[in-house]
Amino acid sequence: MRSITIRSPDDFHVHLRRGSLLSSVAPFTEQYFSRALVMPNTSPAIMEAEQVIRYQEEIRLVAPRLQTLMTIKLTMRTTKATIAAAKLVGVVAAKLYPEGVTTNSQDGVSSIESLYPIFEAMQEVGMVLCLHGELPEMFVMDREWAFLETLQAISMTFPRLKIVLEHITTSDAVKMVLQLPDTVAATITVHHMKLTLDDVVGGLLKPHNFCKPIPKRHVDKNVLIGAATSGNPKFFLGTDSAPHLIENKECASGCAGVFTAPVALQCLAEIFDNEESLEFLEAFTSEFGAQFYGLPLNEGTITLRRDERWVVSTQYGGVVPFLAGETLQWWVSQSVIR
Amino acid sequence: MRSITIRSPDDFHVHLRRGSLLSSVAPFTEQYFSRALVMPNTSPAIMEAEQVIRYQEEIRLVAPRLQTLMTIKLTMRTTKATIAAAKLVGVVAAKLYPEGVTTNSQDGVSSIESLYPIFEAMQEVGMVLCLHGELPEMFVMDREWAFLETLQAISMTFPRLKIVLEHITTSDAVKMVLQLPDTVAATITVHHMKLTLDDVVGGLLKPHNFCKPIPKRHVDKNVLIGAATSGNPKFFLGTDSAPHLIENKECASGCAGVFTAPVALQCLAEIFDNEESLEFLEAFTSEFGAQFYGLPLNEGTITLRRDERWVVSTQYGGVVPFLAGETLQWWVSQSVIR
Repeated sequence: MRSITIRSPDDFHVHLRRGSLLSSVAPFTEQYFSRALVMPNTSPAIMEAEQVIRYQEEIRLVAPRLQTLMTIKLTMRTTKATIAAAKLVGVVAAKLYPEGVTTNSQDGVSSIESLYPIFEAMQEVGMVLCLHGELPEMFVMDREWAFLETLQAISMTFPRLKIVLEHITTSDAVKMVLQLPDTVAATITVHHMKLTLDDVVGGLLKPHNFCKPIPKRHVDKNVLIGAATSGNPKFFLGTDSAPHLIENKECASGCAGVFTAPVALQCLAEIFDNEESLEFLEAFTSEFGAQFYGLPLNEGTITLRRDERWVVSTQYGGVVPFLAGETLQWWVSQSVIR
Repeated sequence: MRSITIRSPDDFHVHLRRGSLLSSVAPFTEQYFSRALVMPNTSPAIMEAEQVIRYQEEIRLVAPRLQTLMTIKLTMRTTKATIAAAKLVGVVAAKLYPEGVTTNSQDGVSSIESLYPIFEAMQEVGMVLCLHGELPEMFVMDREWAFLETLQAISMTFPRLKIVLEHITTSDAVKMVLQLPDTVAATITVHHMKLTLDDVVGGLLKPHNFCKPIPKRHVDKNVLIGAATSGNPKFFLGTDSAPHLIENKECASGCAGVFTAPVALQCLAEIFDNEESLEFLEAFTSEFGAQFYGLPLNEGTITLRRDERWVVSTQYGGVVPFLAGETLQWWVSQSVIR
């Protein structure tokens, strides 16, 4: 196939940042996606309804066509009233970051069980729980695996709570998500289908491939590709596109995160093409996520072609994108976002 | 114990570089060590007798009191005549880098068995074989483990060839070295007794902790500490102190290597102290290596004390040292290098 037209996609995990970085990165998401689930771990973080409204307005000013699906960040201070108020302003999900696990997670959750009353409230109002599924006190390669029993416990305790295990990176996570009820799904990023630990520390050190959870082994990457291209509705796209200014990546203490928004769909087309699974691309990018979140399907379309090659820019507004300078086989020829 | 005086040490694995970097880093090795086994993967590399002589003279000019134990780098073009000529000018060891495995190893060895005639020649003249023991085509965490059967094969084929497995990082390597004959020893670096992969990619990305072989798991680190502090003569100090200018570490493609020369002995005293094994420090730093290489013991002394704390400089001549800015418990109060 030399071209494919799919329903316009949703990105169920994206970091749009704030301030000037927001202005330079949000247009890429707006260009390629109808809707975006916007992560709340900005600085300052989004934890309450009024912050949601303010942040949503900030995004609207720089990316007016993007439909934002807003989230709040759970902390040890989140109350049932927080959840109720957030629901009222349209928040669709609350995100749990275990304390210290990634960018801006210093005030994350130190005791997950103490949040059970909050999960109860989320279950009642129909708010999705998004999990950064890592136990930060474990060895970096074991953190996701070690979190899986927590995922299992939450899903067993709250059988009507919808839970998304975000940006999964291991074959263990794929297995666990498959074995849990339909209330549990997982997002898969583009970069975790492209990278292993070898691409971060295997040759020269590559800060622009550095992200959390850290990419794992080749077998894990292959299992993720298998899950994404399988047509199983438990797995859908959340890019975790996470821009950092170049000076915060190429330094003595580099931030975790890969800016994939400008290349995500092009990469996905290549991955699905290589797997001879292009017929499942639309479901992964534009259907399964919406269905899980109980949202209508988008009406726009996006067309990808592979009749020309294109070279990824080396920088966008001070941020080095994923695959900077590399040549991709697929490109977006038309995007009718509605 | 608040102070310890030991025979002045040898560093059986150090990168002194060339040019201006040589001038800024060699004095640290000269200050703390009587002798240094100087690695040959400079740019350009040291592969022939005449290059050895020239490089040795370059070092002498900036670190005149340091006794240099010179090495050559094995390549697919090394001949028996190369070995004979190198032996004549005092070369004590030849270093094997599998192709592509670390800094300046692009012209490393692609087929180890084809070097067997060279190993034969080295065995005959009594030249030590130093191995960078990693199979570069493997996943980064498995590369050392995967090399061990090559080590075993070489040692079985050349029963009189002295072999050093350099900078070991895994419990598997410790076990293999213990099980092989006395012709096989291993060096252990200071940083591999301090770091795990968590210290490189577990929090923020830390380019100044990035080295090859990549630091492994906590259990591996503990086994290395156990081997170094055990008083077993098969394990001795080779710091692999490997300075890179800050701009070659904090960048999009960072070099592997940790500059430990200014802090190596101070760190070791702390490690041995923590293990209540200070009585084995001298053997590890100043005896076992010399005995393995068949060299006389040094006559100078070095005294370390822990009655004051000192803070490691954040930079030495454009190079960020290991533990930059951190406070160490032990310091070198006197160094009588002879």
